[in-house]
Amino acid sequence: MEKNVTDLIAAIGELDVAAMEAAQERQDQLTKPAGSLGVLEQISIRLAGISGEVCSTIEKKAVVVIAGDHGVTEEGVSAFPSEVTEQMVHNFTNGGAAINVLARHAGAEVVVVDMGVKADIDHPLVVGKKVKPGTDNIAKGPAMTRAEAEAAVMAGAEVAADLIENGVELLATGEMGIGNTTASSAIVSVLGDLRARDVVGAGTGIDSEAIAVKVRIIETAIKRNDPQSDDPLDVLAKVGGLEIAGLVGVVLAAAANRVPIIVDGFISGAAALIAAKLAPPTVNYMFASHQSVEPGHRRILSEIGLAPVLHMDMRLGEGTGAVLAMNIIEAASRIIKEMATFAEASVSESRQSEPVA
Amino acid sequence: MEKNVTDLIAAIGELDVAAMEAAQERQDQLTKPAGSLGVLEQISIRLAGISGEVCSTIEKKAVVVIAGDHGVTEEGVSAFPSEVTEQMVHNFTNGGAAINVLARHAGAEVVVVDMGVKADIDHPLVVGKKVKPGTDNIAKGPAMTRAEAEAAVMAGAEVAADLIENGVELLATGEMGIGNTTASSAIVSVLGDLRARDVVGAGTGIDSEAIAVKVRIIETAIKRNDPQSDDPLDVLAKVGGLEIAGLVGVVLAAAANRVPIIVDGFISGAAALIAAKLAPPTVNYMFASHQSVEPGHRRILSEIGLAPVLHMDMRLGEGTGAVLAMNIIEAASRIIKEMATFAEASVSESRQSEPVA
Repeated sequence: MEKNVTDLIAAIGELDVAAMEAAQERQDQLTKPAGSLGVLEQISIRLAGISGEVCSTIEKKAVVVIAGDHGVTEEGVSAFPSEVTEQMVHNFTNGGAAINVLARHAGAEVVVVDMGVKADIDHPLVVGKKVKPGTDNIAKGPAMTRAEAEAAVMAGAEVAADLIENGVELLATGEMGIGNTTASSAIVSVLGDLRARDVVGAGTGIDSEAIAVKVRIIETAIKRNDPQSDDPLDVLAKVGGLEIAGLVGVVLAAAANRVPIIVDGFISGAAALIAAKLAPPTVNYMFASHQSVEPGHRRILSEIGLAPVLHMDMRLGEGTGAVLAMNIIEAASRIIKEMATFAEASVSESRQSEPVA
Repeated sequence: MEKNVTDLIAAIGELDVAAMEAAQERQDQLTKPAGSLGVLEQISIRLAGISGEVCSTIEKKAVVVIAGDHGVTEEGVSAFPSEVTEQMVHNFTNGGAAINVLARHAGAEVVVVDMGVKADIDHPLVVGKKVKPGTDNIAKGPAMTRAEAEAAVMAGAEVAADLIENGVELLATGEMGIGNTTASSAIVSVLGDLRARDVVGAGTGIDSEAIAVKVRIIETAIKRNDPQSDDPLDVLAKVGGLEIAGLVGVVLAAAANRVPIIVDGFISGAAALIAAKLAPPTVNYMFASHQSVEPGHRRILSEIGLAPVLHMDMRLGEGTGAVLAMNIIEAASRIIKEMATFAEASVSESRQSEPVA
C-alpha cells in the first residue's frame, strides 16, 4: 500500500488498449446490430481496459459507506439534526437502511467506515478510521487541516485496498454525513467555477428559505477560507468533509489497483471530482450510476465527463444509486462473455458494411 | 380467459387506491428523507396499487419474446435480410442471444413465441401461435386483416395469461422481426399525428440514404392504407406487425390480470401505445424501461406518459432493456418491505414539517 497521496496517484496506470480493442472486436461479432447495446457495450470494453482481459469476472462486490459529521450543521443547513449521522450508522449495522436493502439485492457487502462521526462509535461492523470527530464549521474557518485531509484520503484508500486484497472486484462509493451536501456544493462551486446558487439544492429536504441560507453559508465559507481551485487537496481540506476525503481515497485506490468503481450521487460525485482533478486517469476506472436531483450533480458529471445510466430522481446518497447500478455493470460483463457470435449461431450479418453507430 | 379484445379490455380494472395510500404512508416512515428514493418509491406505490398489497412479492418473472416477419422488407428497409428473424429464433432457443444472457442475469424465463415467422418453426421451446407467415407488404396494401390482427392480440394475451396462471408475477415485452421498426414508425406516425421523418431512425443500422427510403415507404404505406387514428386496431392491422399485435395482447392481459408489465423499447412501445389507446387504464400496469436511440421512442413514451429509468443508448429490442429494468422493479419492492422505519431504528425525523419533494 502506498505511503502518501502522491505515491497513490503515481500508481494509477492507463487502460489496457489492446484488451479494449479485442473487446470491441468481439462485441462486433456478437449476434446483434453493431453498437445496438449502446452503453452496455461501452461498459464491457472499459472493463476489458481495466482488467486487461476481454471477459472480466465480477464475483465479490462491496460498497464503502463512509460517515462523517460537519461543523457547518450548526448554521442550520440541513433538515435533520447532526445526531442522525450516528443514528444512521447504527441503522447500517442493523441492516435497516436503504443501502442495506439495495446492497443485499445486489449481492454486495456494505462496509461502514467511521471517518469522522462526532459521537464515539465502537461496533464490530464499523471500520474505525476516525481522523477527528467531525469537521470544523466552514463558515468560520477551514473544515480541517491539509494533513487531516490527506490522512482521511489515505485511510479511505486503505479500506479499499484491503477489500481488493480480499477479492472484491467491483467497488461502489457511499456516504453518510448530515450537512455534506453543503460541503459538496462548496467543492463543486470552487472546482467548477460556479456560483453557489447554481449548485445548491434541497439536500435532505429543506425549503426555499433554508436553501437561501445554505447558499449564503457556502458563499461565506468560500470567501473566508479562499480554497485554491488549482489545488484539489486545498479545496477538500478547507470546505470539504472527512467522509468526502475518505471517498477520494477509495476512488484513487480502486484506480491504482485496477478495480472498477461505481460513483453514487452528489457527495460521492464531489469526491470523484477531486480524485479526477488530482489524477485524471482515475476517470477511466469510474462508472457513473444515477443522475441525482441535486442540481450540482449534473455539473460534476459533465466536469468529469461521465454519463449516468439511471434516471430515477434519487437524492438519498449512502451509495444507493451506485449499488443499484452494479447489476448493469455485471450485465455488461456477462453480455461479452455469454452471447453467441454470428458464426456460432449461423445468423446472417448486416448487409451494410458500415453500420450506423 | 376472455374471448375477444372487447372482453379483454373490459376486464382491466383501476389501481387499488387504498393500497397505494398505505404504501405512500409506509414510504414516509422509512429511514430516509421523504421522497429521496424518487422513482424507486413511486414504483413501490404503483406495485401496491396493482397487487392490492403494500408489500408485493416478485418471485417468478418472464419476458415474452414474440417473433414475426414483415412483407415490407422486400422494399429494402432493413440492414439485415428477413431470414434473420428465423435465425434469431433459433439463437433464442439455443440461449445465445442478448435477451437470453440478460434474462439469465435477471432470473427471468424467456418465452419465445412464433406469431408470424415466414419459415416453419417446430421447436419444443417455441410457443406456436402463428397467425400467418409474415405480414403483407404495407407499401402495397394492409399488413393483415382486422380479424388477423385481433387473432394475434388474443394469441399474445393467451400466452401472458398462461404465464400468470403459472405464477409469473412480473412480465416484460420483447420481440424479433426484421422490418419491425418500419411498422412501428408507421404506427407512431399515425397515432401520434407525426410526420414519418420525425419518428424514423436507423433501426438495426441503415445509412442516411436508406433512412430516406424508409421514410418514403412509410409515407406510401400510410397514404395507401389510410389507417384511422381513432381506431387503434385499424392502425395495427393496416401498418402494424404480427409480433406487435401479439405484444398488444400481452400488455392487455397483464393489466387484466393485475400483473406489472415492463415495456421494452421502440417496437414494444408501439404495442404499448396501441394498448393504451384501446384501454387507457392499461398504462397503470406498465413500467417503461429504457430510452431507446430510435427517435420515435421518445414520442411514444411522452404520448403514453411514462418515463424510462435507464438511459443506455440501446436499440436492440428482443426485450433487452425490459429485462435489465426488472432488477429495478424488484429493488423497489424490496425497499418498501425491508427498510426500517424511523421508529424501529430510533432515527430522528426531519425538522421540516413539509419536506421538499
